[in-house]
Amino acid sequence: MDRAFPGPGGPKGRAVVLRVGVIGTGTIGQDHIRRLTRVLSGVAVVAVTDIDRNRARAAAPEGARVYDTAEDLIRAEAVEAIVICSWGPAHEEQLLACIEAGKPVFCEKPLVTSEKAALNVMRAEFDVGRRLIQVGFMRRFDPDYRQLKAVIEGGSLGAPLMFHSVHRNPALPQGLWTSDMPLNDALVHDADIARWLLNDEIRGVEVRVPRRSRRADKVRDPTFVLLHMASGALVDVEISLNIAYGYDIRGEVSCEEGTASLPLRTAAVVRDVHGIRQKAPSDWRERFIEAYDEEFRTWIAAATQRAAAGPSTWDGYVATLIAAAALRAAESGRLEDVTLPDMPTIYPAPIASTS
Amino acid sequence: MDRAFPGPGGPKGRAVVLRVGVIGTGTIGQDHIRRLTRVLSGVAVVAVTDIDRNRARAAAPEGARVYDTAEDLIRAEAVEAIVICSWGPAHEEQLLACIEAGKPVFCEKPLVTSEKAALNVMRAEFDVGRRLIQVGFMRRFDPDYRQLKAVIEGGSLGAPLMFHSVHRNPALPQGLWTSDMPLNDALVHDADIARWLLNDEIRGVEVRVPRRSRRADKVRDPTFVLLHMASGALVDVEISLNIAYGYDIRGEVSCEEGTASLPLRTAAVVRDVHGIRQKAPSDWRERFIEAYDEEFRTWIAAATQRAAAGPSTWDGYVATLIAAAALRAAESGRLEDVTLPDMPTIYPAPIASTS
Amino acid sequence: MDRAFPGPGGPKGRAVVLRVGVIGTGTIGQDHIRRLTRVLSGVAVVAVTDIDRNRARAAAPEGARVYDTAEDLIRAEAVEAIVICSWGPAHEEQLLACIEAGKPVFCEKPLVTSEKAALNVMRAEFDVGRRLIQVGFMRRFDPDYRQLKAVIEGGSLGAPLMFHSVHRNPALPQGLWTSDMPLNDALVHDADIARWLLNDEIRGVEVRVPRRSRRADKVRDPTFVLLHMASGALVDVEISLNIAYGYDIRGEVSCEEGTASLPLRTAAVVRDVHGIRQKAPSDWRERFIEAYDEEFRTWIAAATQRAAAGPSTWDGYVATLIAAAALRAAESGRLEDVTLPDMPTIYPAPIASTS
Amino acid sequence: MDRAFPGPGGPKGRAVVLRVGVIGTGTIGQDHIRRLTRVLSGVAVVAVTDIDRNRARAAAPEGARVYDTAEDLIRAEAVEAIVICSWGPAHEEQLLACIEAGKPVFCEKPLVTSEKAALNVMRAEFDVGRRLIQVGFMRRFDPDYRQLKAVIEGGSLGAPLMFHSVHRNPALPQGLWTSDMPLNDALVHDADIARWLLNDEIRGVEVRVPRRSRRADKVRDPTFVLLHMASGALVDVEISLNIAYGYDIRGEVSCEEGTASLPLRTAAVVRDVHGIRQKAPSDWRERFIEAYDEEFRTWIAAATQRAAAGPSTWDGYVATLIAAAALRAAESGRLEDVTLPDMPTIYPAPIASTS
Repeated sequence: MDRAFPGPGGPKGRAVVLRVGVIGTGTIGQDHIRRLTRVLSGVAVVAVTDIDRNRARAAAPEGARVYDTAEDLIRAEAVEAIVICSWGPAHEEQLLACIEAGKPVFCEKPLVTSEKAALNVMRAEFDVGRRLIQVGFMRRFDPDYRQLKAVIEGGSLGAPLMFHSVHRNPALPQGLWTSDMPLNDALVHDADIARWLLNDEIRGVEVRVPRRSRRADKVRDPTFVLLHMASGALVDVEISLNIAYGYDIRGEVSCEEGTASLPLRTAAVVRDVHGIRQKAPSDWRERFIEAYDEEFRTWIAAATQRAAAGPSTWDGYVATLIAAAALRAAESGRLEDVTLPDMPTIYPAPIASTS
Repeated sequence: MDRAFPGPGGPKGRAVVLRVGVIGTGTIGQDHIRRLTRVLSGVAVVAVTDIDRNRARAAAPEGARVYDTAEDLIRAEAVEAIVICSWGPAHEEQLLACIEAGKPVFCEKPLVTSEKAALNVMRAEFDVGRRLIQVGFMRRFDPDYRQLKAVIEGGSLGAPLMFHSVHRNPALPQGLWTSDMPLNDALVHDADIARWLLNDEIRGVEVRVPRRSRRADKVRDPTFVLLHMASGALVDVEISLNIAYGYDIRGEVSCEEGTASLPLRTAAVVRDVHGIRQKAPSDWRERFIEAYDEEFRTWIAAATQRAAAGPSTWDGYVATLIAAAALRAAESGRLEDVTLPDMPTIYPAPIASTS
Repeated sequence: MDRAFPGPGGPKGRAVVLRVGVIGTGTIGQDHIRRLTRVLSGVAVVAVTDIDRNRARAAAPEGARVYDTAEDLIRAEAVEAIVICSWGPAHEEQLLACIEAGKPVFCEKPLVTSEKAALNVMRAEFDVGRRLIQVGFMRRFDPDYRQLKAVIEGGSLGAPLMFHSVHRNPALPQGLWTSDMPLNDALVHDADIARWLLNDEIRGVEVRVPRRSRRADKVRDPTFVLLHMASGALVDVEISLNIAYGYDIRGEVSCEEGTASLPLRTAAVVRDVHGIRQKAPSDWRERFIEAYDEEFRTWIAAATQRAAAGPSTWDGYVATLIAAAALRAAESGRLEDVTLPDMPTIYPAPIASTS
Repeated sequence: MDRAFPGPGGPKGRAVVLRVGVIGTGTIGQDHIRRLTRVLSGVAVVAVTDIDRNRARAAAPEGARVYDTAEDLIRAEAVEAIVICSWGPAHEEQLLACIEAGKPVFCEKPLVTSEKAALNVMRAEFDVGRRLIQVGFMRRFDPDYRQLKAVIEGGSLGAPLMFHSVHRNPALPQGLWTSDMPLNDALVHDADIARWLLNDEIRGVEVRVPRRSRRADKVRDPTFVLLHMASGALVDVEISLNIAYGYDIRGEVSCEEGTASLPLRTAAVVRDVHGIRQKAPSDWRERFIEAYDEEFRTWIAAATQRAAAGPSTWDGYVATLIAAAALRAAESGRLEDVTLPDMPTIYPAPIASTS
């Protein structure tokens, strides 16, 4: 090998490739392994683990070692940073182990599955004195949402007063969904993006259940949610999880002097017997492909510095509280408050309370 | 004059031109006189009246007689049908006089200003045994809304589950508006079009008041309303009356297998330093010009037969109840019921209750 | 009958209803009779004629007299103004008779079918000393084209340099079309609108014949045309007469600092399994319905004053020359000049030569 | 370092990171270095050179060696593959050196600057017996064009008959452009994409020069070009290089039963005093960012196998002939033929001649 070529560990001995271990090799785990291996630079997947060892072996890229347990993987010297794609109930223990090991971690949603667990994780991170966790709210990295935020923050439209958020899935996997999922799994995306987009905090949640779709199985669908923001801004969310025609994420922010909305995703315009038409994205992977890449670019850059950026443990904690409030609101039919403690100082304050 | 030409009264002596009297010659009255005189066929304005006699004289087209009072005009033998553009509190008495005279009448919104007055008018019409009144809900005649209704009734999208209605005005005339107006004057349009579009009745109303626009004077603005339909469908209405950029009426109906929405209004697409852009309509007159023409075509055709079509006294009565419920809901913060009696049999039943 | 009601002939004995005779009661003639009878005000069809007398009788509205010949109808005292919807070769004689009778006339395209005939008609009109003829280039009255012209003339985009005009028909009636028709019948619309839109005159024509559509029968289709304007602006026209999906008229003007284009026609936006889509118009009647109404409003207003407005005999004459040049260009493959004499002074000069 | 982690050179000693040398570190060279270093995986820039040695030094990423000459860089053992971003006249010699060294090369447009040079390069590659060169026609990798091609090749619209291609730049750099550039530098993109999109070869070129923009300096602008394809399909190209409002690439393919066109690029939809609007891209870097990334992914994958994919030397050669024919056509005003020899068998035949 040519001496002039220093390899991924640079001439000064600093590794320029982040060595990552992936916990959980299901659908999303496999997609992230593909991304970290074939799409993004400055990173290599060197370790994987899964409760199904065969699945882990099949998903491991060339040269990656398969570990028996998440604990082993987290502690391995070869692993500099961790991506958690296991199921939600396992996150608390794995996150605490990462924090103990002082290793940066990317954690898919949900952060954890209870307020208590969220507080435990947040406390552990606080005790370390700095952020180590980025939570997988990928929408914040979507170029369309970023443009929308830039327009609003540009200020030419005045203050944001309302946000209409539309969240549509063509269909749910048979039998996999429970009745809590529209609020537990879908709403959290709209709630997080509302907080980020409006730079505002959620103070209360209302849920209304419209006429049910015949296409919905046991899940309430569609669902309509109102989020009351600290500034007084009102967010309404349409969640339609069985709407057949495609995966469609839309949003319009009404401000004092105009509005701004997400564009249609680009797709060839066809003029034929079905009209003048464009294809809608078929699923979240197609729709948010740039967002997933970009969220990992941000994570890799920060993790290489042994730090964390992007959506934080605090954001994951707030999402947990909002999902809980939404479930209460669906039961009670009333406005359910979301009461937050003071945000620990290790988190940035992008979200200002204006009231 | 050539003998071969029979004139507007045909060879069999039947008048083919409907002779109309107009009560109230303010902005909307003048616009309707223009429409009846210069745009539409089969009609002539032969009489006008106004509380301001000079204004009436100025507005009267050539050959039209100016009457001292609405009562005189209604009773005049020369007047076959009446258009009421006076202010709301005068409507009850004028409508009752028209019914007594057995003359078809077009009545601008609101039908009347109290539930009691609405019941009086409805009772009088019922006693005559047939409809004489068309109420000015012009949106039902808009080609865009008609297309939208045709798509929904075509059935390919399944049942309608939600309707997102957006009602935006660039600005309110200084000092003319009171705090009730967003609900009394704006909401009634969205409520009526929701009933017609979904072929459904309103059972309850909720009102939420978001962060107030600095551009709003004494009026609550914007306002957010939820209409609960008999079928369970949920309608959310954004009312923004000071949004600066234009007059913008939008709507999307979410169904079981897809959605249908109003198109953008056509406007030249300009590509320049401000982007790729289209002008929004500047006011309701520009936006609904075809709708106004078409609602009068329908009225003229029916009135020529001494009958009435289009939105009925019942629709005006329901609008009165909904506005009252919305005002209560704004006070209470709760869901306020709209309880309707049985619809008198003289009205068509386009709106089916499905629960 | 009430004395106060003067009837359509006003109190001063002046007819306020224009008494019209229609020559030719085929498809377009019937549509214009409907328009003049049921849609527009200030006009009545009092006479009709057709070479097929039964067809004339069937098309005649109540009270209208059926004449044996166009000549009789034109001369009848009851007829104040004439609408010519007969076939092209009959136009010259009928137009000359109208001019001789001093009666305003609306003439459907083509004005006439030879340059010599056009010169004869223009000479006769010139000898009368004023315009009597409006030619049926309805696109000039289309609200979309009017907006486009307003943008260009507003001047903010600088001088127009190119115009891309698209003319698409879903299909041609079997057997009715000849090989000249794309240039004789379709191109003339694009050529006239280009002159009007750019306020410019056509100096030369080139025709290119692309790969032929299998859907085309004996007609060359599609056809591609270049119009060289006096200012140097270049117009390219796509003519596709069998494109299946709909009737689609589009246009974009490229200027020095931006472009302006016709909008999509409004149609409900449907999101379903076929994508996010809007219906295209199905034919010219649907697409240009407002334009036809508006061209007749203009004609009625002028004819009531015994005058003419809108597209003139000169415009019809120029169209004849352009069609002839285009046919020569299709043969020669070369640029064919269009050489115009000085425009007679009775015609307005909306079209300035800038070179 | 953990033994389990084999590093970028895998356990079998095979390098998984392609070691690249970049020739030319001007604007585009710097952008490609950024892309190869920070965006893409499986690649590292290990060598740079430039006629301005200081510029090369500034552009070199960490660990990369700066070579004195292109020749040295090409021959260096450390360099597995080369990216040529030098100016056109230097390409022939550099490409021949790469071929001699048997190293895969990515060459920015133009391939070379004369037909003779193109033939020399093509001959050298043929003598090696396999492709080594990918030419930088990045549009073929743009997701919008790829969708468009997929629709056309799907076949539901029938055969393509016409293609309307629009190529707009906001402004040209002062003083840098010569009068040949609209045809030499802009047209080649539209010509290449037309060949690829329609799977068709160019047989002739016509050029028309419309009224000149006052914003154009010494360059003819705009320019209008017709490309006659082997199948008979006709391509018209609007080239506007000073159109102020943005960088706008558009295209619509008219087929027998419908059309397909590039979508608008996504951009937030803003409703404000300037209308309902979206920003146009400001330059080619913004517009084609995904395309550039994707063309290099294709190149890296092939070069790692010591092969080449994507646009070939043949495509670069054809572009040279088309530019020459276009320059002749601009002079002559006539149709200038493009006569191609048989394509050497080392090139794939994606472009079928159908006549």
